[in-house]
Amino acid sequence: MNYESMISEKMKGVKASAIREIFKVAGKPDIISFAGGLPAPESFPVEAIKKICEDILTQEPVTALQYGISEGYAPLMEEIKKRLEEKFNIDMTANEMVIVSGSQQGADLLTKVLINEGDGVVCEEPSFIGCLNTFRTYKAELYGVPTNENGMDTDILEETLKKHKNIKMIYTIPTFQNPSGNTASLETRKKMLALAQKYNVIIMEDNPYGELRFTGEDVPTIKSLDKTGHVVYIGSFSKVFSPGLRLAYMVFDKGLAEKIVVGKQATDVHTNVFSQMIAARYLKEYDIDESIAKSRDIYKHRCELMLSCMDKCFPKSVTYTRPEGGIFIWVTLPEGTDTLSLMKEAVEKKVAFVPGNTFMTDIDKPCNSFRLNYSTMPDEKIIKGIEILGELLKSKFD
Amino acid sequence: MNYESMISEKMKGVKASAIREIFKVAGKPDIISFAGGLPAPESFPVEAIKKICEDILTQEPVTALQYGISEGYAPLMEEIKKRLEEKFNIDMTANEMVIVSGSQQGADLLTKVLINEGDGVVCEEPSFIGCLNTFRTYKAELYGVPTNENGMDTDILEETLKKHKNIKMIYTIPTFQNPSGNTASLETRKKMLALAQKYNVIIMEDNPYGELRFTGEDVPTIKSLDKTGHVVYIGSFSKVFSPGLRLAYMVFDKGLAEKIVVGKQATDVHTNVFSQMIAARYLKEYDIDESIAKSRDIYKHRCELMLSCMDKCFPKSVTYTRPEGGIFIWVTLPEGTDTLSLMKEAVEKKVAFVPGNTFMTDIDKPCNSFRLNYSTMPDEKIIKGIEILGELLKSKFD
Repeated sequence: MNYESMISEKMKGVKASAIREIFKVAGKPDIISFAGGLPAPESFPVEAIKKICEDILTQEPVTALQYGISEGYAPLMEEIKKRLEEKFNIDMTANEMVIVSGSQQGADLLTKVLINEGDGVVCEEPSFIGCLNTFRTYKAELYGVPTNENGMDTDILEETLKKHKNIKMIYTIPTFQNPSGNTASLETRKKMLALAQKYNVIIMEDNPYGELRFTGEDVPTIKSLDKTGHVVYIGSFSKVFSPGLRLAYMVFDKGLAEKIVVGKQATDVHTNVFSQMIAARYLKEYDIDESIAKSRDIYKHRCELMLSCMDKCFPKSVTYTRPEGGIFIWVTLPEGTDTLSLMKEAVEKKVAFVPGNTFMTDIDKPCNSFRLNYSTMPDEKIIKGIEILGELLKSKFD
Repeated sequence: MNYESMISEKMKGVKASAIREIFKVAGKPDIISFAGGLPAPESFPVEAIKKICEDILTQEPVTALQYGISEGYAPLMEEIKKRLEEKFNIDMTANEMVIVSGSQQGADLLTKVLINEGDGVVCEEPSFIGCLNTFRTYKAELYGVPTNENGMDTDILEETLKKHKNIKMIYTIPTFQNPSGNTASLETRKKMLALAQKYNVIIMEDNPYGELRFTGEDVPTIKSLDKTGHVVYIGSFSKVFSPGLRLAYMVFDKGLAEKIVVGKQATDVHTNVFSQMIAARYLKEYDIDESIAKSRDIYKHRCELMLSCMDKCFPKSVTYTRPEGGIFIWVTLPEGTDTLSLMKEAVEKKVAFVPGNTFMTDIDKPCNSFRLNYSTMPDEKIIKGIEILGELLKSKFD
């Protein structure tokens, strides 16, 4: 049969993520890949998880294997709430929580609950391709707002909110942003919140990397500043525990709870119970902060090594961010360069990165930036890969 | 802030499932609950899963805990494909597969890919509340077609397809249907497929209970009859392995693959890898058919016991289905009865069931049927609960 005529309007324009296609190349063993976004596998607490699985399947196997409830596994929610109150200063008496199957599902659910086809979503430009695609599958109108080392440009954000009355949501990764590595300043965060209140829109604060700071001072989450319920916060276990277990949590004002829970229920009933129990016991019985500190050390070392190689090998006309945490560096080449075609040249030289257009609201427009990831590469590959990239860049821009 | 004005049109009309509210009552220890839909926990292969977890976390922990791909874990897909070809006669050379986080996610993804707001979905009347709610969250127009002991009434199905040009999909649970327990005959299945071809609509064949036959002869899946790609098949591990692990699979013509994979990617990136590995090893290293045979024995015994108690205790004016498998019996009272108010009386007498209106396209219309579940109750509770229900019914209809 002819499926083309059958596809919904909202899905017609959505294409497979370019990153996934790049992964197919980048996954080859002879390629040095800076294209990924995976946590370092050395950071997975394998022995603890093994012990916990045995305990769960000995002590409460039926709870782990039977249906659970849509909101989430209560003991895990308790552990997360404690952490959010103590470490993140988020008032959990005014908010509700739902455990979701990864941050992306949180973004999907919130979009489902808020967005009609044609409604507007403001995104940082550049932003995370995964969520941009989520918004596209709801036929949202995307409005990109440029970012700099202090986060979203709030003047342009206000102009955008003023101009487009269809906007219902601002999507932001304020800390160690994907792909830029930048962190929004406290001033930017306060301004964003004030604008959300003024124009009555919801901020979706996506914070998967927030605990991965390896230098500088923590900046409060936007949610911790929010007294009016304008912020929906999404935290994740993917970068601090395990992405394969698909665990994240959404925190939102009670007024949104019913629709988010119904949405979760109609989407996949509930999040994997066994995984929720593993995380709950890990938080209760082990020291996750110790494990996160280990990840931070790994990323600090790799980030500093990559930056020092870049300082040495990249031509002066090439600029890049110097992240204080997270797993990404954003590289900007002289204007007019198309990093998509540069990427193809780089792959021929056995180095992969993600071209910047991938992260833009308009993915068809050539982009002179690209994203580098340092979280999983051993030292010698970081050194070698940046050397190769440096030569390629020097052949063009020196 | 006022969220009401913020909620999307598609979510405005969707309410929390009545079953969930009933569960809150039914979960109390002094209630005999026939309201659930859970598999018997005795059927969970706990020891095998414990051994498998240990093996996985010893031999390939990083694969289990790291990100996976959206389509699914390849070794699990291989095992399922073999089973679908050998046991279900489904041609996997013409079809693609995606592993999803439970059948409901399969329904959600297919709806996302096909349905625009206002498009029509045909449902069996009664049908599974979970998927009806999924369709509602996409603002689909629901068209109920009555069912009988041979499945959907295909004359009314054809009338419906002829009349409503907006219909894009037929949703069916042809085998041991939830909530009726009925199984569509081969003739009904062939007719449904022919109508799908004639009117160019997709059949979503949801088959979570298909392997739980305890009497009578297997009927081929609609997907096994499909040579034109009109059927999307959803199989599940929830009733034959573990629901808590959230594992199901969608099988569809290659022409639908790109959009379904992109939809999965934008929804929750991929299904829990650890769980997929557990199921893959279980299928490879253990005998799932032996485990399923054990479940069948449990359900046969409980179903026969419940039916014999009903034969003894229920008044003659009350009719009910006699399922050949699955986990549900559908009870019909004299016309004009409202089983929602009856349910409240039953709960006062410490017995719970699900009133029939829950399973209808129009949930606000009173319904004279209700659903009984027998899969998790011990004998003495089945006997006692049916006795109490019988007395209540006799006080009204004898």
